[in-house]
Amino acid sequence: MGRSLLPDERLRRAVHLKNRLIVNLLGEFFGTFVFIFIGLCVSMQYVLGRQALSTFIQVNFGWGLALGFCVYLLTGSSGGHLNPAVSFCFFTLGRLPFHHLVLYTVVQTIGAFLSAFCAYFYYFDQFEKFAGGERSVTGPFATAGAFTSFPDAHVSHVTCFVDQIVGTACLTFFITVFTDKRNKIPSGIVALLVVLFALNLGYPINPARDFGPRLFACLVYGREVFSYSSYYFWIPMVAPFIGGPLGGWLYHIFVGVHIPYDIDDEDRPETAAV
Amino acid sequence: MGRSLLPDERLRRAVHLKNRLIVNLLGEFFGTFVFIFIGLCVSMQYVLGRQALSTFIQVNFGWGLALGFCVYLLTGSSGGHLNPAVSFCFFTLGRLPFHHLVLYTVVQTIGAFLSAFCAYFYYFDQFEKFAGGERSVTGPFATAGAFTSFPDAHVSHVTCFVDQIVGTACLTFFITVFTDKRNKIPSGIVALLVVLFALNLGYPINPARDFGPRLFACLVYGREVFSYSSYYFWIPMVAPFIGGPLGGWLYHIFVGVHIPYDIDDEDRPETAAV
Amino acid sequence: MGRSLLPDERLRRAVHLKNRLIVNLLGEFFGTFVFIFIGLCVSMQYVLGRQALSTFIQVNFGWGLALGFCVYLLTGSSGGHLNPAVSFCFFTLGRLPFHHLVLYTVVQTIGAFLSAFCAYFYYFDQFEKFAGGERSVTGPFATAGAFTSFPDAHVSHVTCFVDQIVGTACLTFFITVFTDKRNKIPSGIVALLVVLFALNLGYPINPARDFGPRLFACLVYGREVFSYSSYYFWIPMVAPFIGGPLGGWLYHIFVGVHIPYDIDDEDRPETAAV
Amino acid sequence: MGRSLLPDERLRRAVHLKNRLIVNLLGEFFGTFVFIFIGLCVSMQYVLGRQALSTFIQVNFGWGLALGFCVYLLTGSSGGHLNPAVSFCFFTLGRLPFHHLVLYTVVQTIGAFLSAFCAYFYYFDQFEKFAGGERSVTGPFATAGAFTSFPDAHVSHVTCFVDQIVGTACLTFFITVFTDKRNKIPSGIVALLVVLFALNLGYPINPARDFGPRLFACLVYGREVFSYSSYYFWIPMVAPFIGGPLGGWLYHIFVGVHIPYDIDDEDRPETAAV
Repeated sequence: MGRSLLPDERLRRAVHLKNRLIVNLLGEFFGTFVFIFIGLCVSMQYVLGRQALSTFIQVNFGWGLALGFCVYLLTGSSGGHLNPAVSFCFFTLGRLPFHHLVLYTVVQTIGAFLSAFCAYFYYFDQFEKFAGGERSVTGPFATAGAFTSFPDAHVSHVTCFVDQIVGTACLTFFITVFTDKRNKIPSGIVALLVVLFALNLGYPINPARDFGPRLFACLVYGREVFSYSSYYFWIPMVAPFIGGPLGGWLYHIFVGVHIPYDIDDEDRPETAAV
Repeated sequence: MGRSLLPDERLRRAVHLKNRLIVNLLGEFFGTFVFIFIGLCVSMQYVLGRQALSTFIQVNFGWGLALGFCVYLLTGSSGGHLNPAVSFCFFTLGRLPFHHLVLYTVVQTIGAFLSAFCAYFYYFDQFEKFAGGERSVTGPFATAGAFTSFPDAHVSHVTCFVDQIVGTACLTFFITVFTDKRNKIPSGIVALLVVLFALNLGYPINPARDFGPRLFACLVYGREVFSYSSYYFWIPMVAPFIGGPLGGWLYHIFVGVHIPYDIDDEDRPETAAV
Repeated sequence: MGRSLLPDERLRRAVHLKNRLIVNLLGEFFGTFVFIFIGLCVSMQYVLGRQALSTFIQVNFGWGLALGFCVYLLTGSSGGHLNPAVSFCFFTLGRLPFHHLVLYTVVQTIGAFLSAFCAYFYYFDQFEKFAGGERSVTGPFATAGAFTSFPDAHVSHVTCFVDQIVGTACLTFFITVFTDKRNKIPSGIVALLVVLFALNLGYPINPARDFGPRLFACLVYGREVFSYSSYYFWIPMVAPFIGGPLGGWLYHIFVGVHIPYDIDDEDRPETAAV
Repeated sequence: MGRSLLPDERLRRAVHLKNRLIVNLLGEFFGTFVFIFIGLCVSMQYVLGRQALSTFIQVNFGWGLALGFCVYLLTGSSGGHLNPAVSFCFFTLGRLPFHHLVLYTVVQTIGAFLSAFCAYFYYFDQFEKFAGGERSVTGPFATAGAFTSFPDAHVSHVTCFVDQIVGTACLTFFITVFTDKRNKIPSGIVALLVVLFALNLGYPINPARDFGPRLFACLVYGREVFSYSSYYFWIPMVAPFIGGPLGGWLYHIFVGVHIPYDIDDEDRPETAAV
């Protein structure tokens, strides 16, 4: 009673947000910012360093760890989607109302854009040292690949599109497995599994992660970041929205809905009533 | 009460299967399909890519993660055998009735066959690019090794046979350790340990994983996939069925049956009464 | 009742310290000693061995494991800060009184100094074999890098300073996430996550880890360990004290304080009342 | 009630051992056999294979995983010492009576001897292929290093001795940390941490692991396995018995005995009353 308040509790009294939607949006914004910022730093070290020490596997590991840790970060608020395709999957499963989905997508993309901004100026000196004044999407001093995806130009759009669908479906498939309460996977383990998954997949299949930094890269590299490979840029913005629900529903159709029901009413997701 | 149903709960109402056997068969079919599909994709990237980035270790890691994740997938239904030798081991331990074993083996093999089918057409372009029209089991443009096992032709059948027995015994030995309730290993950890195990072992010792894709490969590569190395193909179909029970029983003979009994009746496996 | 006491319980009766502060200081001293000793051994094997087997990744892994294990070591006493910047972050959050902070910093630095002393004489033969009588900070037979950080001389102080701030903020950010009880991450998992984190970050951002061994190295290598790169040495002593609180508070501002409050009074940190 | 018994329960009725000491000895024997057998297989693949795919890191990983998994194996019986130095550490802490220690040491060594026997004949063909009829401890076709440790002949006995003490102390130090109930590390996690530890340390510091296979190797390679490097062989048989208790007691002196006591009587180890 008479104990003085801890500093973070004083802060809580002053700025605690009661509106769950705003808390979740703030969390998704900041979580996506941190996730993509760390990931971009890892990619930039790889692209700019040209050093054997920072191998491609370490890049995947860095992205995977950043993703898993930011899922932990949002355990107590939004749950940590960090990806519009994941949010969309949860929307189709009725776990997220439509206007939440729209707002999540917006703040995730803004977070990703800002992370590209910060990472660029954080590594600005090394960009200068590596490529001089040049900023190019292709060629020996190309650095745009540190921001977003630029597949080999000879890979067809159909291949890219199918790849993105399969990859995102795979992601949301296992996310749905891990978070289905009927599977009783301890929540402390789920994010660890996300780390393992991302570690292996390498590139996150994530419209916000792809488009946000691409938009920023456009300011630095010009319109080529959009026109590259016959305007490839729209594929990672569209295909994950097909793969996302596909993965979640495949799980439910083949496995999830047939598990004997034993979740009590309390455990039902809150957003269902919204 | 008045809350509207979630979409996946509506689906549950519409298609929920009550028959546990059918649920388990559907799960084993789909789980094996996903497991082998992801594994084959990893192997095909390795074989077709010829790139330093995708090393042999990553191949093992990919298979291991696919296996562990698909065990998680079936936590709530069959438990995730995904391997006829594992099912056979559980049959000899009285955890699975004989007709279940037969049906499990069939659907696992069908799942593996279909996964080879899907993976082949998913990577068809890259097969074409890598080997042109050629489809060969041996030689510099050999690609059949992406589907199933083709040991060096000079390795004797006896060696292969013993290897398969030891490998499968090792697998079922530790599966029996991890799943014995007397050892009180949290179920959320078990699949993680399976990942670690498979990560190190590399090739799964699994008749369905070997025969299913081999059957499909026969349609693509011709009869050589069966006649290779003096009709080696039967060894991974037979030896694991010896190693499987061997591992499980070795555990029980030396360790399991001597642990002071403290499992209450509820925890006893349901299938025992069948 | 009549059972004889176990040897460690007899020791407990003889030397058990009741004063929590002294227990924590002893723990922080010894934990930091063990942590840095193991880490320095790993670094020295790398620097002195010149062998392909001990790659840079293994160095990071060794440091990460040493850190995580020493966090486990102090689970029951101080909690395992092992880093003045972490202690400072907890001080600003009101979890640690000021005089504890000062004493923690002192014993952590002494522990790190002693670990450098021990590691040096443990590897003395190999130092002799590698560099003869020479002890140099730069050049082909440089070995001072096994003790503490010596960035390339052309990297500006501003870059180093910002790097240290960002790195430390990142560390304390996730430590605050993992240890916030509202996130309900099992305590057995937290140190595992610290391992994963350190594994990826490589060099610990830690004033005690940097200054303690540097002070010892000064006795061996002369004043150059301080004068190197325009007296760079003060940066890892100052910057982490900015980054430390920054990380902890960023978490609370954007996420922590908005999580619905559900920690009961008992769980409130004890030091708050001090 | 009317349910028929499971096969392993029928076996239990037939052969269940009631004497805890005999159960533990059987477990330690078999567990050490499996642990060293898997480890030796990994080492033999490395030595005989000369292939890039099986790197030194994978060897460490194989040994680490074998150790951790065999600790899981004995969760319900002896707890999984698998190492006379660990047993000796527990003896000095009063957790193991003296005659148990002696018997544990004997069965662990017999298990390790038998595992060398089995591994040798399992890989006999590859030994023949690799070295022809030759069996040598040194030289280009040396294979004895697959069985046990043969440090470079120029490393002094003092260095080896100190190394073994430090290594074993490090092992028992963290084992004591992980298994001290006051630290509340979930038992499912402990063996995972042992895996991580062994993964990094590489060579197990273990008299049974060193001497058992050395004795067998003597039958194959002659007395040189003992006379090598001025009769080095006794060092890994003696030094770990100094390092083992050192590690365990260092933990208790600096940390363990000062943790506020909160283990209830029930949790006190049973062997204390023996």
